[in-house]
Amino acid sequence: MSKEITSRSTDYSQWYNDLVIKGELADYSAVRGCMVIKPYGFALWENMRDVLDKMFKDTGHVNAYFPLFVPKSLFEAEEKNAEGFAKECAIVTHYRLQADPDRPGKLMVDPTAKLEEELVVRPTSEAIIWSTYKNWIQSYRDLPILVNQWANVVRWEMRTRLFLRTAEFLWQEGHTAHATRQEALDETVKMLHVYADFVENYMAVPVIKGIKTPQERFAGAEDTYCIEALMQDGKALQAGTSHFLGQNFAKAFEVKFSDRDNKLDYVWATSWGVSTRLIGALVMAHSDDDGLVLPPRIAPLQVVIVPIYKGDEQKAAIDACVQTLVQSLKSMGIRVKYDDNDNARPGWKFAEYEMKGVPLRLAIGARDLENKVVELARRDTREKSTVPLEGLAVRIQQLLEEIQQQLFSKALAYRNEHITPVDTWDQFVSMLDTKGGFMAAHWDGTSETEEAIKEKTKATIRCIPLDNKQEAGHCILTGKPSAQRVLFARAY
Amino acid sequence: MSKEITSRSTDYSQWYNDLVIKGELADYSAVRGCMVIKPYGFALWENMRDVLDKMFKDTGHVNAYFPLFVPKSLFEAEEKNAEGFAKECAIVTHYRLQADPDRPGKLMVDPTAKLEEELVVRPTSEAIIWSTYKNWIQSYRDLPILVNQWANVVRWEMRTRLFLRTAEFLWQEGHTAHATRQEALDETVKMLHVYADFVENYMAVPVIKGIKTPQERFAGAEDTYCIEALMQDGKALQAGTSHFLGQNFAKAFEVKFSDRDNKLDYVWATSWGVSTRLIGALVMAHSDDDGLVLPPRIAPLQVVIVPIYKGDEQKAAIDACVQTLVQSLKSMGIRVKYDDNDNARPGWKFAEYEMKGVPLRLAIGARDLENKVVELARRDTREKSTVPLEGLAVRIQQLLEEIQQQLFSKALAYRNEHITPVDTWDQFVSMLDTKGGFMAAHWDGTSETEEAIKEKTKATIRCIPLDNKQEAGHCILTGKPSAQRVLFARAY
Repeated sequence: MSKEITSRSTDYSQWYNDLVIKGELADYSAVRGCMVIKPYGFALWENMRDVLDKMFKDTGHVNAYFPLFVPKSLFEAEEKNAEGFAKECAIVTHYRLQADPDRPGKLMVDPTAKLEEELVVRPTSEAIIWSTYKNWIQSYRDLPILVNQWANVVRWEMRTRLFLRTAEFLWQEGHTAHATRQEALDETVKMLHVYADFVENYMAVPVIKGIKTPQERFAGAEDTYCIEALMQDGKALQAGTSHFLGQNFAKAFEVKFSDRDNKLDYVWATSWGVSTRLIGALVMAHSDDDGLVLPPRIAPLQVVIVPIYKGDEQKAAIDACVQTLVQSLKSMGIRVKYDDNDNARPGWKFAEYEMKGVPLRLAIGARDLENKVVELARRDTREKSTVPLEGLAVRIQQLLEEIQQQLFSKALAYRNEHITPVDTWDQFVSMLDTKGGFMAAHWDGTSETEEAIKEKTKATIRCIPLDNKQEAGHCILTGKPSAQRVLFARAY
Repeated sequence: MSKEITSRSTDYSQWYNDLVIKGELADYSAVRGCMVIKPYGFALWENMRDVLDKMFKDTGHVNAYFPLFVPKSLFEAEEKNAEGFAKECAIVTHYRLQADPDRPGKLMVDPTAKLEEELVVRPTSEAIIWSTYKNWIQSYRDLPILVNQWANVVRWEMRTRLFLRTAEFLWQEGHTAHATRQEALDETVKMLHVYADFVENYMAVPVIKGIKTPQERFAGAEDTYCIEALMQDGKALQAGTSHFLGQNFAKAFEVKFSDRDNKLDYVWATSWGVSTRLIGALVMAHSDDDGLVLPPRIAPLQVVIVPIYKGDEQKAAIDACVQTLVQSLKSMGIRVKYDDNDNARPGWKFAEYEMKGVPLRLAIGARDLENKVVELARRDTREKSTVPLEGLAVRIQQLLEEIQQQLFSKALAYRNEHITPVDTWDQFVSMLDTKGGFMAAHWDGTSETEEAIKEKTKATIRCIPLDNKQEAGHCILTGKPSAQRVLFARAY
């Protein structure tokens, strides 16, 4: 097998890269920090996108599309937003190349084609969208606006990793406008629940819903809600955020509406997003040393069928049997492939589909056919079983559902084992190093302490869980009084 | 009615802009030459995209995603390609903004954050994709590669028009790689037929399939196939192109494969694309002076139901009746909206949905309910009819299909009337000015003559139709011998 994978225990980070590349999800590109999402990875993203898109539409949202570029002056309008992203943007300064007079066949930037105002390639679209909403909103009758956009965004990251942190990535960004503070707050929380529903029930990754500290908040937001997941190396990963923006962007872009009493007020806003980063979370949550493990509900391929035969006669008999089965499965909406490519041996195919995380593999040989059975292999537990052809399609459907549930249960058990209440600094540091995961610890509520803890340990406050238990205690670092535990972790 | 539309006869160009803006398809943005696609316009694009995406998948293609940026050196590699696009690109030269020391609160480009190599925002992706395919292709076993990408691209157009010509637009670009010349040629033509099928059978816009002259060919292609549509003002619009790229990009990026005999050869390529420009074609092909006219198969909303009532009691009775109808229609997959918003009067709603081109409007009042009928109004013919409630859902389904066919027939009759054979220069010029449309004329086959005709009349050769009739004649400009007529027109 040429496609060897580094084991998690040898080098977790290399294991991850091996999975992404050898599992054919993505590849490096000729552009620094940008990746190519390969067809198999993109099919996964399409499945995720389609489920999310339906969830957004079912909650009353519509899609739209806004420009890729943000003029610098709009970017400056919301001060904190600009500060937050200014250090990491791609800037368009010119609009033409010309032949380089000194290097035949080469091109150079045409110095006469300099833009009067530079354009920022969107790192997020609040500025361009709120400058547009200004024209859409006059009265309470124009509200709410419940718009989502599927788009590419660019943040000039210095250290990049496939899916987890790339200069360009794909995402969706919801941008809503409301007449009241409460309605905007409700929307913020509603979308957090939509994200949690998706990540838990489709990606089979358990999450903690919570709220960020001011330190970790989105620049320009009054509050940032988040869902936090735990990876197999004990590090946390922020899987989605939903921001209550207050009236910050409405004030920056002068977006006012007249209410029922004809009184003018600034509009209330939210924004919320998830990205291709979720694929990184998915890979790290379930996979093992043999390759990807994908949850059936979003796996590009749910079942692969491999024939095992000698000679054309056996092959023809297997083909006939498989054809009926494939039709049954497809009519049930199951994504199935019959791999009868004769360039590769069954053993090679088995390894290949294990690498790619296909949830169920079905092997069928001549003797199986006589006995009216097939061999089924689960990717998650590696269990193999011999199953009758009779009723097979329904059995497969049940098994896919079992695998989905089993993946979630396993990840949930791991996550729950890795929420550790710690009461002293020494305990905090030692558990972080030895066990990892979330540390439920008291904190004095100041950004200074939060920053000091981060400097000393690289652990950050991932969130203050929603409906957090109130419990008096003392800050693990300063000993000052605290009213609740918060969740610390090292994070992606 | 505040939303008045300029009539076609008054100002065709303003009529088009009015439709796009007042029909809420798109809007201007704060970024020069870039548009905002509004929710109604984006819903239309989603329907078009979903149909096309299925057609691509049904013909064996898969989606992937490649970087937004193309390093300048890759852009230079395929000489003609670079020349073709060099004059109209957005160029990223820096990766950071910083606080402007002279203007508090303002930002400036950080001069120390200059990229070593400039990045071009993709105007098309051949260069970045073929630099990637180099790593994907070693043997004939890796071929064909049948990849499509849905993406945004940027071309720095000087004169822009909503949908028809914008700096940024959305499109799909197929990029395929093949082992033989014939297979690549077959793919090129196959995708041309897919486009024609989509534009004719979903957009209800008839097209002529043909091949471009060298002058009008895509830079970097050996042959460009196209579909050409005709707008109501007699101008042609190129609705889609499919390029046979020969081995040009494989040679530029050194992409070779070993064939079955272990011999190395360059890979054969195609690329093909359609864009949001199709929405411009759709608007101009069917709409009238009262607003948009959208073909049912891709209309965001196919049926709108407006209640006409006095008092709550009548409203409740209508509601009950409509609820059943809406359920029946939805179960048949029909996109229907019941507009019982009491902020607007029926007359206002009628005009609004006419403006938005909803194919069927259904009005139902208290007396209708007694008589067990409704009033149906077709957007295309403006016919109104009183139709029994009994069997209404099925009748609506039939009518939507009739409207779809009627739109195509009408556009086809108009198009066919506007293909005019002309034999002399005077006839050519006079028919172009008075009648418009396609002129079927003899041409001596040289780029010089083509260019001269363009200079004199602004008419270009739109295409040489596939399976064109061979017929001896004389060039309308030079009188030199010609073997066939080609189609000239002024074009968007």
